[in-house]
This record gives sequence, C-alpha cells and structure tokens, in this order.
Amino acid sequence: MADKINGIDIKILKLLAKNARLTYKELAEILGTTRQRISRRMDRLERNGIIRKYTVIPNYDALGYVHVILGITVKPSANIDEIIPILVEDENIKIVERALGSHNLVVHIVGPKDMKELEKIINEVSKKIPGIDKLDITFVTETVKFEVL
Amino acid sequence: MADKINGIDIKILKLLAKNARLTYKELAEILGTTRQRISRRMDRLERNGIIRKYTVIPNYDALGYVHVILGITVKPSANIDEIIPILVEDENIKIVERALGSHNLVVHIVGPKDMKELEKIINEVSKKIPGIDKLDITFVTETVKFEVL
Repeated sequence: MADKINGIDIKILKLLAKNARLTYKELAEILGTTRQRISRRMDRLERNGIIRKYTVIPNYDALGYVHVILGITVKPSANIDEIIPILVEDENIKIVERALGSHNLVVHIVGPKDMKELEKIINEVSKKIPGIDKLDITFVTETVKFEVL
Repeated sequence: MADKINGIDIKILKLLAKNARLTYKELAEILGTTRQRISRRMDRLERNGIIRKYTVIPNYDALGYVHVILGITVKPSANIDEIIPILVEDENIKIVERALGSHNLVVHIVGPKDMKELEKIINEVSKKIPGIDKLDITFVTETVKFEVL
C-alpha cells in the first residue's frame, strides 16, 4: 500500500509540476525545510508511483513533428487487456491511456509532418486493434495551456 | 526565428524526456561534452520555446483525482480564438489544446472523484463554450505508457 501523502508532499508536487528541475536545495528553501526531508519525501513519492516521471513538454511543431490523438472505441466484446500490450510496444505510440466513456483507449502519436507517412502509421495502428469500432483522429495544432496539478 | 536545432539538442531533449532532473553534469557525462555546452544548449532550447516546460507526470488516481479528457467539436461558425481564453483561465482546466479533425479543442480536467461534483464542473465548462456542437467525455482510468519523444 502507498504511504500516506501529506501536505508537504502536495506542495513538493505542485512545485515540481511547475518546474521539475528545482533542486533539493531550492525546494527546501521555498518550503522552509531541509534538503534531507525534501529528498526523503521525493524518494517516497517516486517509490509509491505518485510521481511517475519527470519529463519535458516540448513544442512538437518546432521540432518538425505532428502530435496526433487517437480516440479509440472498441466493440463491447473486445478485450482491452489484449490490445494494450500491442499498442505499448509500438514505437510510434508515445502515450497509451486506458479509458471509460466516449473512448476506451486514448493513444498519442508523435509522427512526421508528411501526411502520407502519417496516414500509413495511423492505418497500421488501427489495423492492429482487434475489435476496433470507431477511431476519432485529432491533430493537435497548438498546446495553449499545459499544467499538471 | 528559432535557432537551428542540432544533433546534440535532440540528444539532450531525449534524455530530459526520460528524466528531466538530470543535472548539467550528468548530461555532460552521458553525452561526452562539457557542462557549459549543455547549459548553453538548454538555455537556448528554453528560449526558443522548444522546451515548453519541465514537469512531473503524477498518478492522479493515487492522489485522489480523476483525469477527464473533453473532446470538443464546435460549429463551423464558432470562433475558437474567442473560446480559448475562456478555457485557459478556468482553474479546473489543466490542458487546453487547439486541434483539427474529430475535435477542435481538447481539454483536460483534473477533478474530484465525486461524480456529482465532476458533472457540475463539466457542465460549467461546456456551458462556457459558445457554439459548442459535440462533447466527447473520456475518463482516463490508467496511463499505461507515457513517453514524450
């Protein structure tokens, strides 16, 4: 079981959500505590899986990529547990989310701007999914806001 | 105009995408270069907006939150430039993406697990959007894979 999350954990998380590169020292100074305590709490948050990852949010367009979101709906008889590993191992697929509601799976592709190439990648992904019923394709043209917490 | 991105920039980005907390020293050692060069390239990537943000990917479920994606389609007559600022200033909305395809806007809400509370938040968001035509609501139950580059 996960250890209890307390107020300092939430404060650390909110600061790291805004800037994941803050050092233990900087976090300790902002929160009026010691580096040791910050380090201990962060280790715990990482071990508990509350912090899944420290990462960077890039501007895909400036890097020459296109960011595509696939909203996938499968037939009620489809087995999502069998579909997920197929998607996870696909190198073109960066994000795989299991979901409930309009879509059963949300998949993010970061691909080339060339539309013919992209069409091929999306077709290959959709062909791999047994029991696929509907595919909503959305091209992200601009990330206007990105906050985590 | 953005400065030219080169091979070392891409290598730095890929390492930071896996772990945004790597120090200049660690990055320099992995890439066989100097801290000064890493620092200079990262400053540049930040200034160019290629790196939008260093952040943390949390486990929302473990924190007691629900992660909801709203896929919004507006009528062709709707003015997205007028809608975006309304969404950006909403505290419940963490991510706002302008898009093309199945949805014109993708909005992420991180809200309470209480479904009645959540319904209220989603209703308030949808009521704020002039010219809304369709709203796809997807509840993320698990983030199985999260990579950036």
